[in-house]
Amino acid sequence: MTPQTRIETALDIALIRSRAGSCPPKLASALEYAVKPGGARIRPTICLNVARACGDDAPGLTDAACAAIELIHCGSLVHDDLPAFDNADVRRGKPTVHKAWSEPLAVLTGDTLIIMAFEQIALAARSDALRAATLTLELARYSGMPHGICAGQAWESEAQVDLSAYHRAKTGALFTAATRMGAAAAGADPEAWTELGARIGEAFQVADDLRDALYDEETLGKPAGQDVVNARPNAVSELGVQGAIKRLDDILSGAISSIPSCPGEAALCEMVRKTAERLTPVIPNLASVRTA
Amino acid sequence: MTPQTRIETALDIALIRSRAGSCPPKLASALEYAVKPGGARIRPTICLNVARACGDDAPGLTDAACAAIELIHCGSLVHDDLPAFDNADVRRGKPTVHKAWSEPLAVLTGDTLIIMAFEQIALAARSDALRAATLTLELARYSGMPHGICAGQAWESEAQVDLSAYHRAKTGALFTAATRMGAAAAGADPEAWTELGARIGEAFQVADDLRDALYDEETLGKPAGQDVVNARPNAVSELGVQGAIKRLDDILSGAISSIPSCPGEAALCEMVRKTAERLTPVIPNLASVRTA
Repeated sequence: MTPQTRIETALDIALIRSRAGSCPPKLASALEYAVKPGGARIRPTICLNVARACGDDAPGLTDAACAAIELIHCGSLVHDDLPAFDNADVRRGKPTVHKAWSEPLAVLTGDTLIIMAFEQIALAARSDALRAATLTLELARYSGMPHGICAGQAWESEAQVDLSAYHRAKTGALFTAATRMGAAAAGADPEAWTELGARIGEAFQVADDLRDALYDEETLGKPAGQDVVNARPNAVSELGVQGAIKRLDDILSGAISSIPSCPGEAALCEMVRKTAERLTPVIPNLASVRTA
Repeated sequence: MTPQTRIETALDIALIRSRAGSCPPKLASALEYAVKPGGARIRPTICLNVARACGDDAPGLTDAACAAIELIHCGSLVHDDLPAFDNADVRRGKPTVHKAWSEPLAVLTGDTLIIMAFEQIALAARSDALRAATLTLELARYSGMPHGICAGQAWESEAQVDLSAYHRAKTGALFTAATRMGAAAAGADPEAWTELGARIGEAFQVADDLRDALYDEETLGKPAGQDVVNARPNAVSELGVQGAIKRLDDILSGAISSIPSCPGEAALCEMVRKTAERLTPVIPNLASVRTA
């Protein structure tokens, strides 16, 4: 089974379970709408590749970890798009959940996706319950408080922002969770995999800043120029376009050299290189770059 | 340690963990605001009493289960109060979280409380990881989809409502979780404890309907007459005040007779009787009853 098929299958199983018996049909459909067809599935792909590099000896736990990370990610997107946050109308090229369904259903979709994420791990616990507990702790650590994506989003409500904590939590946390949980699912020590995740997360942030500054709404599949509109810190305003691209290269080289020695090391380096290619934006007409 | 002290200590430990290191201070305070000082803690009290009746041989897991249920409950209240749902200004006699803090922080508070709930169980997994996985599954089952409190809330977005599924999920689910998780924390079979939880949940729903119809905002600590305002099904509109009180008595008798034979059976019957006393409203001036 290809990595992509494994990830989609794990997500499909979670969605099918959420629809069993007499359940409110709109929420069931909104859950599916929020998860499928999805974006690049970059976080679970990283998780799966690290698990494989570490031997992937409990594939059910690996699949659960991948699904859990993606479900939490999709849930956070649904809540981030709400009128109280980004008030976004479009996500992945289609109306956001609160636009397509309603604001109550969007809140409930996010809540339910968080719950489903933890549920997937527990469902796979039979093969190794201690590993499942470790995965649960990792997922909670990188999604909740004090340092997960909820904390990251909450920094935007503060007058005094700890910028490094903000970036690490808001974008970096789920990438760090991806490498650590991939290792933990395969019984390896998550600690050795923290730096790889953190660096991919940093790279992703810089790439996202570049895309936000360089691309239009049609290419992005969501509103463009939001960092300037919302006065958010952005690598392009700070370093310029070429400086940001140089920074992206440096981070990805660092990511590759951080990969611990393991049976699947070569394949993993290849994955980071491919991720880098996917992340680095094709530069359009520089005259339209937003750097205000 | 008294049950109340055990429950508050478990919640305090969860809150202290959520505040460690450099974290966004408003979200940390909003979490505490949403959880403390709290209401009657009726769900974790039931959970703890069932665990004790079953021997309570892994008290760390029992405490975690109690904290988890209450954290999920508090999170659901924060989200239910949002403008998109009940648009409530007051909860437990003080401004709701979105009124006291902001709507973004209220969304994040609910999300984080859900995550913290699952985290508490995983933190206690060392003593028995399989039991922890069971507790996680129970919590997910009764809070998410297809039959948990999120599903219950989502029925309110449907034109065609399955009324029995709606009540069971919206109010009953966390009571059923409370008895089942109390049993599971102590290594007993949750199945035997489903009916007790379901019946206490039904009793709570009828008592809540009575209070909503009979009491004013000051006594309730939240807006009164909301069932009539929102045209929600209500036992008082259906059966009248005396009929609803009779129904409450019948349900609680059923609850007591459903208690499985176990070492702590007598203490548990006493708890249900006390819960009944607490639930049954003191009837004020009947002329002001809302039954429209």
